[in-house]
Amino acid sequence: MKIRWGVIGAGGIAVNRTIPGMLASGSSTVAAVMRTDERKLAEVQARFPMAQGYVSVSEMLRDSGNLDAVYIASPVKFHLEHALACAAAGKPMLIEKPIGMNLGELEAIREACENAGVFFDGALMMRYHALHRKMRDAVRAGVIGDVVSIRMSFCFRYPEMAGAWRQRKEIGGGGVFMDLGPHCLDLVQFVSGRKIKRVAAFMDTMTFTYEVEDSASVLAELEGGGHALLSMHFNIPEDVAETRFDVYGTEGALLAGGTLGQEERGTLRLKRTGTVAAEEIQYEAGNLYAKEIDGFAELMNNRCRWSEAMDGQQELQRTLDAVYEAASLQETNGEG
Amino acid sequence: MKIRWGVIGAGGIAVNRTIPGMLASGSSTVAAVMRTDERKLAEVQARFPMAQGYVSVSEMLRDSGNLDAVYIASPVKFHLEHALACAAAGKPMLIEKPIGMNLGELEAIREACENAGVFFDGALMMRYHALHRKMRDAVRAGVIGDVVSIRMSFCFRYPEMAGAWRQRKEIGGGGVFMDLGPHCLDLVQFVSGRKIKRVAAFMDTMTFTYEVEDSASVLAELEGGGHALLSMHFNIPEDVAETRFDVYGTEGALLAGGTLGQEERGTLRLKRTGTVAAEEIQYEAGNLYAKEIDGFAELMNNRCRWSEAMDGQQELQRTLDAVYEAASLQETNGEG
Repeated sequence: MKIRWGVIGAGGIAVNRTIPGMLASGSSTVAAVMRTDERKLAEVQARFPMAQGYVSVSEMLRDSGNLDAVYIASPVKFHLEHALACAAAGKPMLIEKPIGMNLGELEAIREACENAGVFFDGALMMRYHALHRKMRDAVRAGVIGDVVSIRMSFCFRYPEMAGAWRQRKEIGGGGVFMDLGPHCLDLVQFVSGRKIKRVAAFMDTMTFTYEVEDSASVLAELEGGGHALLSMHFNIPEDVAETRFDVYGTEGALLAGGTLGQEERGTLRLKRTGTVAAEEIQYEAGNLYAKEIDGFAELMNNRCRWSEAMDGQQELQRTLDAVYEAASLQETNGEG
Repeated sequence: MKIRWGVIGAGGIAVNRTIPGMLASGSSTVAAVMRTDERKLAEVQARFPMAQGYVSVSEMLRDSGNLDAVYIASPVKFHLEHALACAAAGKPMLIEKPIGMNLGELEAIREACENAGVFFDGALMMRYHALHRKMRDAVRAGVIGDVVSIRMSFCFRYPEMAGAWRQRKEIGGGGVFMDLGPHCLDLVQFVSGRKIKRVAAFMDTMTFTYEVEDSASVLAELEGGGHALLSMHFNIPEDVAETRFDVYGTEGALLAGGTLGQEERGTLRLKRTGTVAAEEIQYEAGNLYAKEIDGFAELMNNRCRWSEAMDGQQELQRTLDAVYEAASLQETNGEG
């Protein structure tokens, strides 16, 4: 039996990526789509005719007998309300990142899940990228020695757009860091196998007129050693700044270009000290979202791992909060 | 008439780089070399037979009538003492970076210089690299739009070595950041044309057993906007981590690989948004140290610029101190 998904907030990411991922996966299908705008809902249903359409979460959950799991892709501000409703309906949830506007919201969602005997996980499909898994395996195997520096760059142009909730602090919770930070922080920890211990950050709105940050630079120190330097920008064109995810160790480096994003693509080169040529690592590209959905399906069947999954999301949200806190501290301090 | 240099601390950098630079320059020659170890002094003199040899600064300065300028390349701990002696002898000075162990030492040197009617400058030869000058010119001309992110990586392996003063805090003042930080911070400001406003930093001794940091990661925010992310390591082999100096703007990027170091080499690519191919910028390589020496000679003849030069060094040392301060603050804080 396939998992029948209900989708809350069937907008861009759901329609273009995650629902196609459900349909491409071995595990799932889409049974319901919810979107407040009726005209846009009709467009979504035209594209996915197997799904019932709803304009409110409560309506969708009245038919919850037809649903096995819910994917929440509404604006961040609404995650809490929607997740509490789904927990009350006894549905496990895949929630778009970030889970909450802050750690307090995530904790409320977790409590509701535990009371209802369900769970949630975050939609972090980039950790399913075959190259990121190969990087993790190589780090674990000691191929580059001890990891001492990780550098990520994730940039594209995202100018002012009418109606873009990611540009409104009250609805999206933040700007480029709220959008890309969860992926970057998760991948640093996923590949290094180390937790983030401390952070420092600068954030600014340098280029655009919206109220959220268009630029975020973050330093992290890892437990057990190693630094990470993360650079995220809405004001650098993608065609001049291929995404980078480079991991340097005492004996070598894993250099991934173009692997950050919605598709399983890009390249990975392994350089080892004392070896002239870099080795290009081969892989077979698939659909990150189908893999993410299959990963969630596996988790649904593995109740003993639910706590661990929610712990991971909780730690990630704690770190997101710490980064915003660090950036605001830097804001109010003088030099140094 | 050529400028006759006296060299204090005629060790590795002086003998291998700066004295050859003097001899290759149009402006200068070497007239005196000072080194405390007599046997090693004899080796230096064998290599530069035109230079008088001395085992102490006071001896060298007794013959100061033969000298027009002094290059101070002793360990950082001795810069203050040696610079005060040279100022008292009325000699302008080129001082290896960092100028002092801290800002207070630099200010004492400056006061002595102003009282004696001389000046000092810092030995920052990397700003003479033709590609760094081309980067500065391109930024000024707006070729990449508004600068929003600068990323530098400067790494090599520097394991424990008996007698290496750069590995002793009391003598070198610090580790990888004390050694490479002055160049990196100077180049960020030189190329962007913007001053550093605020910094955050993590430093650790991850890999080696010496007492100074082998790893330093620094964030800087620039006046007028823009972030810089600097990564400096003594524990990443050079052959897996080509130096990087990448400047990203809202319309393009200047990407310099292998330009940080003692030689005028490496490559610079210019990428502009909307253009498929990157443009490789051509240049003619010379001797960075000869250029540095000629630059100092020009400054000697341009008394109205002395204050500005010392201001620049003072600001740089202030920022160095701020980075160490930021790293030690992070050290004592909890998460975030």
